[in-house]
Amino acid sequence: MQIINKKLKFLIVGLGLIGGSYARALHKKGFYVSAITDNRQSIDYALSEHIIDDGYDYVNPTAVTEADVIIFALYPQVFVSWIKENASLFKQGTIITDVTGVKGCIVSQIQSLLPDGVEFIAAHPMAGREVYGVQNSDERIFEGANYIVVPTAQNTPEAIEICKDLGRLLGFSRVSELSPEEHDEMIGFVSQLTHCIAVSLMTCCENEHLVSYTGDSFRDLTRIARINENMWSELFMLNKEPLIRQMDIFIKECSLIRDMIATGDTESLKEKMRLSTKRRALFDKK
Amino acid sequence: MQIINKKLKFLIVGLGLIGGSYARALHKKGFYVSAITDNRQSIDYALSEHIIDDGYDYVNPTAVTEADVIIFALYPQVFVSWIKENASLFKQGTIITDVTGVKGCIVSQIQSLLPDGVEFIAAHPMAGREVYGVQNSDERIFEGANYIVVPTAQNTPEAIEICKDLGRLLGFSRVSELSPEEHDEMIGFVSQLTHCIAVSLMTCCENEHLVSYTGDSFRDLTRIARINENMWSELFMLNKEPLIRQMDIFIKECSLIRDMIATGDTESLKEKMRLSTKRRALFDKK
Repeated sequence: MQIINKKLKFLIVGLGLIGGSYARALHKKGFYVSAITDNRQSIDYALSEHIIDDGYDYVNPTAVTEADVIIFALYPQVFVSWIKENASLFKQGTIITDVTGVKGCIVSQIQSLLPDGVEFIAAHPMAGREVYGVQNSDERIFEGANYIVVPTAQNTPEAIEICKDLGRLLGFSRVSELSPEEHDEMIGFVSQLTHCIAVSLMTCCENEHLVSYTGDSFRDLTRIARINENMWSELFMLNKEPLIRQMDIFIKECSLIRDMIATGDTESLKEKMRLSTKRRALFDKK
Repeated sequence: MQIINKKLKFLIVGLGLIGGSYARALHKKGFYVSAITDNRQSIDYALSEHIIDDGYDYVNPTAVTEADVIIFALYPQVFVSWIKENASLFKQGTIITDVTGVKGCIVSQIQSLLPDGVEFIAAHPMAGREVYGVQNSDERIFEGANYIVVPTAQNTPEAIEICKDLGRLLGFSRVSELSPEEHDEMIGFVSQLTHCIAVSLMTCCENEHLVSYTGDSFRDLTRIARINENMWSELFMLNKEPLIRQMDIFIKECSLIRDMIATGDTESLKEKMRLSTKRRALFDKK
Protein backbone atom coordinates (compact mmCIF):
# COMPACT_ATOMS: atom_id res chain seq x y z
CA MET A 1 0.00 0.00 0.00
CA GLN A 2 1.37 3.40 -1.01
CA ILE A 3 0.37 6.12 1.42
CA ILE A 4 2.62 8.92 0.28
CA ASN A 5 1.09 10.65 -2.70
CA LYS A 6 2.89 12.62 -5.38
CA LYS A 7 1.51 15.94 -4.14
CA LEU A 8 3.46 15.82 -0.88
CA LYS A 9 6.33 18.28 -0.71
CA PHE A 10 9.57 17.14 0.90
CA LEU A 11 12.12 19.32 2.66
CA ILE A 12 15.51 17.92 3.56
CA VAL A 13 17.47 19.71 6.26
CA GLY A 14 21.15 18.81 6.09
CA LEU A 15 22.33 17.97 2.59
CA GLY A 16 25.25 15.60 3.14
CA LEU A 17 25.76 12.02 1.98
CA ILE A 18 22.50 10.69 3.45
CA GLY A 19 20.36 13.82 2.99
CA GLY A 20 21.61 14.04 -0.60
CA SER A 21 20.85 10.37 -1.26
CA TYR A 22 17.30 10.86 0.09
CA ALA A 23 16.92 13.88 -2.19
CA ARG A 24 18.11 11.93 -5.24
CA ALA A 25 15.76 9.02 -4.55
CA LEU A 26 12.70 11.22 -3.95
CA HIS A 27 13.40 13.58 -6.84
CA LYS A 28 13.80 10.66 -9.24
CA LYS A 29 10.40 9.38 -8.12
CA GLY A 30 8.89 12.70 -9.17
CA PHE A 31 8.46 14.41 -5.81
CA TYR A 32 9.08 18.08 -5.15
CA VAL A 33 12.19 18.24 -2.98
CA SER A 34 13.68 21.33 -1.38
CA ALA A 35 16.70 21.50 0.91
CA ILE A 36 18.17 23.64 3.64
CA THR A 37 21.82 23.23 4.49
CA ASP A 38 24.48 25.61 5.79
CA ASN A 39 26.80 25.15 2.83
CA ARG A 40 26.07 27.16 -0.33
CA GLN A 41 28.25 24.89 -2.48
CA SER A 42 26.17 21.87 -1.52
CA ILE A 43 23.00 23.67 -2.61
CA ASP A 44 24.57 24.81 -5.87
CA TYR A 45 25.80 21.30 -6.59
CA ALA A 46 22.40 19.75 -5.82
CA LEU A 47 20.59 22.27 -8.02
CA SER A 48 23.03 21.82 -10.92
CA GLU A 49 22.72 18.03 -10.68
CA HIS A 50 18.91 18.25 -10.50
CA ILE A 51 18.86 16.49 -7.17
CA ILE A 52 16.59 19.16 -5.64
CA ASP A 53 14.00 21.64 -6.90
CA ASP A 54 14.88 24.45 -4.50
CA GLY A 55 17.57 25.01 -1.92
CA TYR A 56 18.67 27.51 0.70
CA ASP A 57 21.80 27.97 2.78
CA TYR A 58 19.72 29.60 5.54
CA VAL A 59 16.43 28.73 7.26
CA ASN A 60 13.94 29.95 4.69
CA PRO A 61 10.59 30.18 6.59
CA THR A 62 8.47 29.62 3.48
CA ALA A 63 10.36 26.43 2.60
CA VAL A 64 9.67 25.10 6.10
CA THR A 65 6.03 26.14 6.15
CA GLU A 66 5.27 24.69 2.72
CA ALA A 67 6.80 21.28 3.42
CA ASP A 68 4.52 18.34 4.20
CA VAL A 69 7.31 15.97 5.18
CA ILE A 70 10.60 17.26 6.60
CA ILE A 71 13.61 14.95 6.87
CA PHE A 72 16.39 15.98 9.21
CA ALA A 73 19.83 14.65 8.29
CA LEU A 74 21.89 16.53 10.87
CA TYR A 75 24.14 15.53 13.77
CA PRO A 76 22.00 14.80 16.86
CA GLN A 77 22.79 17.93 18.89
CA VAL A 78 22.52 20.27 15.91
CA PHE A 79 19.16 18.65 15.15
CA VAL A 80 17.86 19.39 18.66
CA SER A 81 19.12 23.00 18.50
CA TRP A 82 17.50 23.51 15.09
CA ILE A 83 14.12 22.35 16.40
CA LYS A 84 14.43 24.56 19.49
CA GLU A 85 15.06 27.62 17.33
CA ASN A 86 12.59 26.98 14.53
CA ALA A 87 9.68 24.91 15.92
CA SER A 88 7.27 27.81 15.39
CA LEU A 89 7.73 27.65 11.61
CA PHE A 90 6.14 24.23 11.09
CA LYS A 91 2.59 24.22 9.75
CA GLN A 92 -0.10 22.03 11.27
CA GLY A 93 0.00 18.46 9.94
CA THR A 94 3.70 18.46 9.13
CA ILE A 95 5.40 15.09 9.53
CA ILE A 96 9.00 15.27 10.67
CA THR A 97 11.41 12.37 10.44
CA ASP A 98 15.17 11.96 10.70
CA VAL A 99 18.17 9.75 9.99
CA THR A 100 19.94 10.18 13.33
CA GLY A 101 22.12 7.32 14.55
CA VAL A 102 21.00 7.47 18.20
CA LYS A 103 17.43 7.66 19.42
CA GLY A 104 16.87 7.41 23.18
CA CYS A 105 18.47 10.75 23.95
CA ILE A 106 16.71 12.75 21.24
CA VAL A 107 13.32 11.31 20.24
CA SER A 108 11.30 12.27 23.35
CA GLN A 109 13.14 15.58 23.55
CA ILE A 110 12.26 16.52 19.97
CA GLN A 111 8.67 15.36 20.42
CA SER A 112 8.28 17.55 23.52
CA LEU A 113 9.63 20.61 21.66
CA LEU A 114 7.09 20.44 18.81
CA PRO A 115 3.75 22.28 18.77
CA ASP A 116 0.53 20.24 18.77
CA GLY A 117 -0.36 19.00 15.31
CA VAL A 118 3.27 18.54 14.23
CA GLU A 119 4.52 14.97 14.60
CA PHE A 120 8.05 13.62 14.80
CA ILE A 121 8.46 9.97 13.85
CA ALA A 122 12.06 8.82 14.15
CA ALA A 123 13.79 6.56 11.63
CA HIS A 124 17.26 5.20 10.99
CA PRO A 125 18.37 4.25 7.48
CA MET A 126 21.06 1.58 7.97
CA ALA A 127 23.14 2.70 5.03
CA GLY A 128 26.26 4.76 4.74
CA ARG A 129 29.66 5.09 3.21
CA GLU A 130 33.09 6.11 4.38
CA VAL A 131 32.86 9.28 2.24
CA TYR A 132 30.93 12.45 2.92
CA GLY A 133 28.93 15.21 1.31
CA VAL A 134 26.15 15.56 -1.25
CA GLN A 135 28.80 15.16 -3.97
CA ASN A 136 29.12 11.51 -2.95
CA SER A 137 25.40 10.91 -2.48
CA ASP A 138 23.90 7.94 -4.27
CA GLU A 139 20.43 6.50 -3.75
CA ARG A 140 21.73 3.02 -4.63
CA ILE A 141 23.25 2.76 -1.15
CA PHE A 142 19.71 1.95 0.04
CA GLU A 143 19.40 -1.17 -2.16
CA GLY A 144 19.57 -4.29 -0.02
CA ALA A 145 19.71 -2.17 3.14
CA ASN A 146 17.57 -2.03 6.28
CA TYR A 147 15.34 0.90 7.32
CA ILE A 148 14.19 1.11 10.91
CA VAL A 149 11.23 3.13 12.13
CA VAL A 150 11.54 4.06 15.82
CA PRO A 151 8.15 5.13 17.20
CA THR A 152 7.23 6.12 20.76
CA ALA A 153 3.84 5.98 22.51
CA GLN A 154 3.29 9.55 21.26
CA ASN A 155 3.22 8.56 17.61
CA THR A 156 0.04 8.02 15.60
CA PRO A 157 -0.46 4.90 13.46
CA GLU A 158 -0.76 7.20 10.41
CA ALA A 159 2.66 8.79 10.93
CA ILE A 160 4.24 5.37 11.51
CA GLU A 161 2.76 4.15 8.21
CA ILE A 162 3.94 7.25 6.33
CA CYS A 163 7.44 6.73 7.70
CA LYS A 164 7.48 3.06 6.68
CA ASP A 165 6.17 4.02 3.27
CA LEU A 166 9.02 6.51 2.94
CA GLY A 167 11.51 3.71 3.65
CA ARG A 168 10.04 1.57 0.89
CA LEU A 169 9.87 4.56 -1.48
CA LEU A 170 13.57 5.25 -0.91
CA GLY A 171 14.35 1.73 -2.05
CA PHE A 172 15.23 -0.02 1.22
CA SER A 173 14.89 -3.78 1.10
CA ARG A 174 13.57 -4.26 4.59
CA VAL A 175 11.52 -1.89 6.74
CA SER A 176 11.08 -2.74 10.41
CA GLU A 177 10.22 -1.20 13.76
CA LEU A 178 12.10 -0.93 17.06
CA SER A 179 11.57 1.06 20.26
CA PRO A 180 14.20 3.76 20.98
CA GLU A 181 15.73 1.52 23.69
CA GLU A 182 15.89 -1.52 21.40
CA HIS A 183 17.33 0.64 18.63
CA ASP A 184 20.12 2.04 20.79
CA GLU A 185 21.13 -1.36 22.13
CA MET A 186 21.14 -2.79 18.60
CA ILE A 187 23.09 0.14 17.16
CA GLY A 188 25.58 -0.07 20.04
CA PHE A 189 26.36 -3.57 18.82
CA VAL A 190 26.13 -3.63 15.02
CA SER A 191 27.39 -0.14 14.29
CA GLN A 192 29.14 1.59 17.18
CA LEU A 193 31.04 -1.44 18.53
CA THR A 194 32.19 -2.31 15.01
CA HIS A 195 33.53 1.23 14.52
CA CYS A 196 35.37 1.01 17.87
CA ILE A 197 36.92 -2.30 16.76
CA ALA A 198 37.99 -0.90 13.39
CA VAL A 199 39.59 2.14 15.04
CA SER A 200 41.31 -0.06 17.65
CA LEU A 201 42.78 -2.22 14.88
CA MET A 202 44.27 0.84 13.19
CA THR A 203 45.55 2.50 16.36
CA CYS A 204 46.77 -0.44 18.49
CA CYS A 205 50.16 -0.61 16.78
CA GLU A 206 52.25 1.06 14.13
CA ASN A 207 51.04 -0.68 10.99
CA GLU A 208 51.60 1.52 7.94
CA HIS A 209 54.28 -0.83 6.55
CA LEU A 210 51.71 -3.66 6.48
CA VAL A 211 50.22 -2.22 3.28
CA SER A 212 52.71 -4.39 1.37
CA TYR A 213 51.66 -7.60 3.07
CA THR A 214 48.02 -7.45 4.06
CA GLY A 215 45.12 -9.39 2.58
CA ASP A 216 41.44 -8.50 2.34
CA SER A 217 40.56 -9.54 5.89
CA PHE A 218 42.35 -6.57 7.39
CA ARG A 219 41.02 -4.25 4.68
CA ASP A 220 37.45 -5.39 5.33
CA LEU A 221 37.69 -5.05 9.08
CA THR A 222 39.08 -1.53 8.82
CA ARG A 223 37.05 -0.04 5.94
CA ILE A 224 35.03 1.93 8.52
CA ALA A 225 38.20 3.02 10.33
CA ARG A 226 38.16 6.07 8.04
CA ILE A 227 35.85 7.83 10.38
CA ASN A 228 34.37 11.31 10.83
CA GLU A 229 35.61 12.02 14.34
CA ASN A 230 33.08 14.75 15.08
CA MET A 231 30.02 12.74 14.14
CA TRP A 232 31.10 9.44 15.64
CA SER A 233 32.43 10.79 18.93
CA GLU A 234 29.10 12.59 19.36
CA LEU A 235 27.15 9.40 18.57
CA PHE A 236 29.29 7.33 20.96
CA MET A 237 28.92 9.80 23.84
CA LEU A 238 25.16 10.04 23.33
CA ASN A 239 24.84 6.25 23.49
CA LYS A 240 27.47 5.64 26.13
CA GLU A 241 25.72 3.03 28.27
CA PRO A 242 24.55 0.61 25.55
CA LEU A 243 27.90 0.96 23.75
CA ILE A 244 29.96 0.28 26.89
CA ARG A 245 27.74 -2.72 27.62
CA GLN A 246 28.34 -4.11 24.11
CA MET A 247 32.08 -3.39 24.23
CA ASP A 248 32.37 -5.26 27.53
CA ILE A 249 30.54 -8.28 26.09
CA PHE A 250 32.80 -8.27 23.02
CA ILE A 251 36.07 -7.77 24.94
CA LYS A 252 35.09 -10.63 27.26
CA GLU A 253 34.42 -12.96 24.30
CA CYS A 254 37.64 -11.93 22.58
CA SER A 255 39.55 -12.68 25.80
CA LEU A 256 37.82 -16.05 26.08
CA ILE A 257 38.92 -16.99 22.55
CA ARG A 258 42.41 -15.72 23.35
CA ASP A 259 42.53 -18.05 26.36
CA MET A 260 41.32 -21.03 24.28
CA ILE A 261 44.26 -20.45 21.94
CA ALA A 262 46.72 -19.90 24.80
CA THR A 263 45.68 -23.15 26.52
CA GLY A 264 45.48 -25.13 23.27
CA ASP A 265 41.77 -25.86 23.69
CA THR A 266 41.21 -26.67 20.01
CA GLU A 267 37.82 -28.31 20.53
CA SER A 268 36.25 -25.26 22.21
CA LEU A 269 37.78 -23.03 19.55
CA LYS A 270 36.29 -25.15 16.75
CA GLU A 271 32.92 -25.05 18.51
CA LYS A 272 33.06 -21.22 18.47
CA MET A 273 34.00 -21.27 14.79
CA ARG A 274 31.11 -23.57 13.92
CA LEU A 275 28.65 -21.29 15.74
CA SER A 276 30.19 -18.27 14.03
CA THR A 277 29.89 -19.87 10.58
CA LYS A 278 26.29 -20.92 11.18
CA ARG A 279 25.21 -17.48 12.36
CA ARG A 280 27.11 -15.51 9.73
CA ALA A 281 25.44 -17.44 6.90
CA LEU A 282 22.25 -15.53 7.73
CA PHE A 283 23.80 -12.13 7.17
CA ASP A 284 24.66 -12.18 3.48
CA LYS A 285 22.71 -9.60 1.52
CA LYS A 286 19.80 -11.24 -0.26
CA MET B 1 62.75 -9.86 -15.85
CA GLN B 2 60.99 -13.15 -16.52
CA ILE B 3 62.93 -16.09 -15.12
CA ILE B 4 60.34 -18.80 -15.41
CA ASN B 5 60.27 -20.13 -18.96
CA LYS B 6 57.42 -21.84 -20.72
CA LYS B 7 59.12 -25.23 -20.66
CA LEU B 8 58.88 -25.55 -16.89
CA LYS B 9 56.34 -28.09 -15.72
CA PHE B 10 54.23 -27.26 -12.68
CA LEU B 11 52.69 -29.69 -10.22
CA ILE B 12 50.13 -28.50 -7.70
CA VAL B 13 49.58 -30.65 -4.64
CA GLY B 14 46.23 -29.86 -3.00
CA LEU B 15 43.63 -28.65 -5.48
CA GLY B 16 41.34 -26.46 -3.38
CA LEU B 17 40.46 -22.79 -3.73
CA ILE B 18 44.05 -21.53 -3.75
CA GLY B 19 45.66 -24.50 -5.52
CA GLY B 20 42.90 -24.35 -8.12
CA SER B 21 43.37 -20.62 -8.62
CA TYR B 22 47.14 -21.14 -9.12
CA ALA B 23 46.36 -23.87 -11.66
CA ARG B 24 43.97 -21.63 -13.57
CA ALA B 25 46.43 -18.74 -13.69
CA LEU B 26 49.36 -20.90 -14.82
CA HIS B 27 47.38 -22.93 -17.33
CA LYS B 28 45.98 -19.76 -18.93
CA LYS B 29 49.56 -18.52 -19.34
CA GLY B 30 50.34 -21.64 -21.34
CA PHE B 31 52.21 -23.73 -18.78
CA TYR B 32 51.88 -27.45 -18.35
CA VAL B 33 50.09 -27.97 -15.02
CA SER B 34 49.41 -31.27 -13.31
CA ALA B 35 47.76 -31.79 -9.94
CA ILE B 36 47.65 -34.29 -7.11
CA THR B 37 44.81 -34.08 -4.63
CA ASP B 38 42.97 -36.67 -2.57
CA ASN B 39 39.57 -35.95 -4.07
CA ARG B 40 38.73 -37.55 -7.43
CA GLN B 41 35.86 -35.11 -8.05
CA SER B 42 38.24 -32.16 -7.80
CA ILE B 43 40.51 -33.73 -10.42
CA ASP B 44 37.59 -34.53 -12.71
CA TYR B 45 36.25 -31.01 -12.37
CA ALA B 46 39.67 -29.45 -13.06
CA LEU B 47 40.21 -31.64 -16.13
CA SER B 48 36.75 -30.93 -17.52
CA GLU B 49 37.21 -27.18 -17.01
CA HIS B 50 40.68 -27.30 -18.61
CA ILE B 51 42.30 -25.94 -15.47
CA ILE B 52 44.95 -28.69 -15.48
CA ASP B 53 46.59 -30.94 -18.07
CA ASP B 54 46.85 -34.03 -15.88
CA GLY B 55 45.61 -34.98 -12.44
CA TYR B 56 45.77 -37.80 -9.92
CA ASP B 57 43.92 -38.58 -6.71
CA TYR B 58 46.98 -40.46 -5.43
CA VAL B 59 50.70 -39.70 -5.30
CA ASN B 60 51.73 -40.51 -8.84
CA PRO B 61 55.56 -40.87 -8.73
CA THR B 62 56.04 -39.89 -12.39
CA ALA B 63 54.05 -36.68 -11.92
CA VAL B 64 56.28 -35.75 -8.98
CA THR B 65 59.51 -36.69 -10.74
CA GLU B 66 58.66 -34.83 -13.92
CA ALA B 67 57.72 -31.57 -12.21
CA ASP B 68 60.18 -28.66 -12.21
CA VAL B 69 58.21 -26.52 -9.78
CA ILE B 70 55.90 -28.06 -7.18
CA ILE B 71 53.41 -25.90 -5.30
CA PHE B 72 51.97 -27.28 -2.09
CA ALA B 73 48.54 -25.94 -1.18
CA LEU B 74 47.82 -28.18 1.82
CA TYR B 75 47.16 -27.58 5.52
CA PRO B 76 50.50 -27.17 7.37
CA GLN B 77 50.63 -30.53 9.15
CA VAL B 78 49.46 -32.51 6.12
CA PHE B 79 52.14 -30.69 4.10
CA VAL B 80 54.88 -31.81 6.52
CA SER B 81 53.59 -35.41 6.51
CA TRP B 82 53.46 -35.46 2.70
CA ILE B 83 57.11 -34.37 2.46
CA LYS B 84 58.16 -36.93 5.08
CA GLU B 85 56.55 -39.73 3.08
CA ASN B 86 57.51 -38.68 -0.43
CA ALA B 87 60.76 -36.71 -0.29
CA SER B 88 62.60 -39.46 -2.19
CA LEU B 89 60.45 -38.87 -5.31
CA PHE B 90 61.72 -35.36 -6.09
CA LYS B 91 64.25 -35.09 -8.90
CA GLN B 92 67.42 -33.02 -8.52
CA GLY B 93 66.82 -29.34 -9.22
CA THR B 94 63.15 -29.34 -8.25
CA ILE B 95 61.91 -26.09 -6.72
CA ILE B 96 59.22 -26.51 -4.10
CA THR B 97 57.05 -23.68 -2.85
CA ASP B 98 53.83 -23.42 -0.85
CA VAL B 99 50.91 -21.24 0.14
CA THR B 100 50.84 -22.11 3.84
CA GLY B 101 49.52 -19.49 6.26
CA VAL B 102 52.18 -20.01 8.96
CA LYS B 103 55.90 -20.25 8.38
CA GLY B 104 58.12 -20.43 11.48
CA CYS B 105 56.96 -23.89 12.49
CA ILE B 106 57.24 -25.49 9.05
CA VAL B 107 59.84 -23.85 6.80
CA SER B 108 63.03 -25.11 8.50
CA GLN B 109 61.40 -28.45 9.13
CA ILE B 110 60.53 -28.95 5.46
CA GLN B 111 63.96 -27.73 4.36
CA SER B 112 65.65 -30.26 6.64
CA LEU B 113 63.53 -33.11 5.25
CA LEU B 114 64.51 -32.53 1.61
CA PRO B 115 67.39 -34.26 -0.17
CA ASP B 116 70.31 -32.15 -1.40
CA GLY B 117 69.55 -30.48 -4.71
CA VAL B 118 65.85 -30.00 -3.96
CA GLU B 119 65.01 -26.55 -2.64
CA PHE B 120 62.00 -25.35 -0.69
CA ILE B 121 61.31 -21.62 -0.91
CA ALA B 122 58.25 -20.63 1.13
CA ALA B 123 55.62 -18.13 -0.03
CA HIS B 124 52.29 -16.81 1.15
CA PRO B 125 49.72 -15.50 -1.33
CA MET B 126 47.63 -12.99 0.64
CA ALA B 127 44.40 -13.80 -1.13
CA GLY B 128 41.44 -15.91 -0.20
CA ARG B 129 37.73 -16.17 -0.05
CA GLU B 130 35.17 -17.42 2.43
CA VAL B 131 34.31 -20.30 0.06
CA TYR B 132 36.25 -23.49 -0.61
CA GLY B 133 37.21 -25.97 -3.27
CA VAL B 134 38.53 -25.93 -6.81
CA GLN B 135 34.95 -25.30 -7.97
CA ASN B 136 35.22 -21.80 -6.48
CA SER B 137 38.76 -21.16 -7.70
CA ASP B 138 39.34 -17.94 -9.61
CA GLU B 139 42.70 -16.46 -10.55
CA ARG B 140 41.24 -12.96 -10.34
CA ILE B 141 41.48 -13.15 -6.54
CA PHE B 142 45.19 -12.37 -7.02
CA GLU B 143 44.55 -9.01 -8.71
CA GLY B 144 45.46 -6.17 -6.38
CA ALA B 145 46.72 -8.66 -3.79
CA ASN B 146 50.06 -9.10 -2.01
CA TYR B 147 52.42 -12.06 -2.46
CA ILE B 148 55.09 -12.66 0.17
CA VAL B 149 58.22 -14.71 -0.35
CA VAL B 150 59.60 -16.07 2.93
CA PRO B 151 63.22 -17.19 2.48
CA THR B 152 65.63 -18.56 5.07
CA ALA B 153 69.46 -18.53 5.09
CA GLN B 154 69.29 -21.90 3.33
CA ASN B 155 67.70 -20.49 0.19
CA THR B 156 69.64 -19.63 -2.98
CA PRO B 157 69.17 -16.26 -4.73
CA GLU B 158 68.00 -18.19 -7.82
CA ALA B 159 65.14 -19.92 -5.99
CA ILE B 160 64.08 -16.65 -4.36
CA GLU B 161 63.93 -15.00 -7.80
CA ILE B 162 61.95 -17.89 -9.29
CA CYS B 163 59.49 -17.65 -6.42
CA LYS B 164 59.08 -13.89 -6.87
CA ASP B 165 58.64 -14.39 -10.58
CA LEU B 166 55.90 -16.92 -9.87
CA GLY B 167 54.09 -14.30 -7.77
CA ARG B 168 54.19 -11.81 -10.64
CA LEU B 169 53.18 -14.49 -13.14
CA LEU B 170 50.14 -15.36 -11.05
CA GLY B 171 49.01 -11.75 -11.27
CA PHE B 172 49.78 -10.43 -7.80
CA SER B 173 50.12 -6.66 -7.60
CA ARG B 174 52.89 -6.57 -5.06
CA VAL B 175 55.64 -9.11 -4.38
CA SER B 176 57.73 -8.69 -1.24
CA GLU B 177 59.97 -10.57 1.13
CA LEU B 178 59.80 -11.30 4.88
CA SER B 179 61.67 -13.61 7.23
CA PRO B 180 59.60 -16.45 8.75
CA GLU B 181 59.51 -14.60 12.09
CA GLU B 182 58.42 -11.31 10.50
CA HIS B 183 55.83 -13.18 8.46
CA ASP B 184 54.29 -14.90 11.46
CA GLU B 185 54.09 -11.71 13.52
CA MET B 186 52.51 -9.88 10.57
CA ILE B 187 50.05 -12.68 9.85
CA GLY B 188 49.14 -12.87 13.56
CA PHE B 189 47.98 -9.28 13.25
CA VAL B 190 46.46 -8.77 9.78
CA SER B 191 44.93 -12.19 9.31
CA GLN B 192 44.63 -14.28 12.46
CA LEU B 193 43.64 -11.49 14.86
CA THR B 194 41.03 -10.25 12.38
CA HIS B 195 39.52 -13.75 12.14
CA CYS B 196 39.42 -13.97 15.97
CA ILE B 197 37.63 -10.60 16.08
CA ALA B 198 35.09 -11.63 13.44
CA VAL B 199 34.34 -14.89 15.27
CA SER B 200 34.05 -13.06 18.62
CA LEU B 201 31.54 -10.64 17.10
CA MET B 202 29.37 -13.52 15.92
CA THR B 203 29.61 -15.57 19.11
CA CYS B 204 29.59 -12.93 21.89
CA CYS B 205 25.79 -12.67 21.94
CA GLU B 206 22.69 -14.10 20.34
CA ASN B 207 22.36 -11.95 17.22
CA GLU B 208 20.43 -13.80 14.52
CA HIS B 209 17.48 -11.37 14.79
CA LEU B 210 19.82 -8.48 13.90
CA VAL B 211 19.65 -9.49 10.23
CA SER B 212 16.62 -7.18 9.94
CA TYR B 213 18.43 -4.17 11.31
CA THR B 214 22.10 -4.33 10.53
CA GLY B 215 24.06 -2.15 8.13
CA ASP B 216 27.20 -2.89 6.12
CA SER B 217 29.64 -2.25 8.99
CA PHE B 218 28.64 -5.43 10.78
CA ARG B 219 28.52 -7.38 7.50
CA ASP B 220 32.03 -6.22 6.60
CA LEU B 221 33.52 -7.00 9.98
CA THR B 222 32.05 -10.50 9.97
CA ARG B 223 32.51 -11.59 6.34
CA ILE B 224 35.42 -13.78 7.46
CA ALA B 225 33.40 -15.17 10.38
CA ARG B 226 32.31 -17.94 7.97
CA ILE B 227 35.38 -19.89 8.78
CA ASN B 228 36.81 -23.34 8.09
CA GLU B 229 37.30 -24.49 11.69
CA ASN B 230 39.81 -27.23 10.87
CA MET B 231 42.16 -25.04 8.86
CA TRP B 232 41.98 -21.95 11.06
CA SER B 233 42.26 -23.72 14.42
CA GLU B 234 45.37 -25.46 13.07
CA LEU B 235 46.82 -22.14 11.85
CA PHE B 236 46.06 -20.44 15.19
CA MET B 237 47.63 -23.21 17.27
CA LEU B 238 50.75 -23.28 15.08
CA ASN B 239 51.19 -19.52 15.51
CA LYS B 240 50.08 -19.30 19.12
CA GLU B 241 52.68 -16.90 20.51
CA PRO B 242 52.55 -14.16 17.84
CA LEU B 243 48.75 -14.40 17.75
CA ILE B 244 48.35 -14.14 21.53
CA ARG B 245 50.74 -11.17 21.52
CA GLN B 246 48.64 -9.41 18.86
CA MET B 247 45.36 -10.25 20.60
CA ASP B 248 46.65 -8.78 23.84
CA ILE B 249 47.71 -5.57 22.09
CA PHE B 250 44.31 -5.29 20.42
CA ILE B 251 42.26 -6.09 23.53
CA LYS B 252 44.25 -3.50 25.48
CA GLU B 253 43.58 -0.82 22.84
CA CYS B 254 39.90 -1.74 22.67
CA SER B 255 39.69 -1.42 26.46
CA LEU B 256 41.45 1.96 26.31
CA ILE B 257 38.89 3.27 23.81
CA ARG B 258 36.12 1.81 25.95
CA ASP B 259 37.44 3.78 28.94
CA MET B 260 37.66 7.01 26.90
CA ILE B 261 33.97 6.62 26.10
CA ALA B 262 33.07 5.68 29.68
CA THR B 263 34.86 8.72 31.12
CA GLY B 264 33.62 11.07 28.37
CA ASP B 265 37.15 11.84 27.14
CA THR B 266 35.98 13.10 23.74
CA GLU B 267 39.28 14.76 22.84
CA SER B 268 41.36 11.58 23.25
CA LEU B 269 38.72 9.63 21.34
CA LYS B 270 38.82 12.10 18.43
CA GLU B 271 42.63 11.88 18.44
CA LYS B 272 42.37 8.09 18.03
CA MET B 273 39.86 8.53 15.20
CA ARG B 274 42.10 11.00 13.38
CA LEU B 275 45.05 8.60 13.62
CA SER B 276 42.81 5.75 12.45
CA THR B 277 41.56 7.75 9.45
CA LYS B 278 45.05 8.83 8.46
CA ARG B 279 46.46 5.30 8.62
CA ARG B 280 43.52 3.60 6.94
CA ALA B 281 43.78 5.89 3.91
CA LEU B 282 46.95 3.99 2.95
CA PHE B 283 45.20 0.62 2.79
CA ASP B 284 42.78 1.09 -0.08
CA LYS B 285 43.55 -1.21 -3.00
CA LYS B 286 45.36 0.70 -5.72
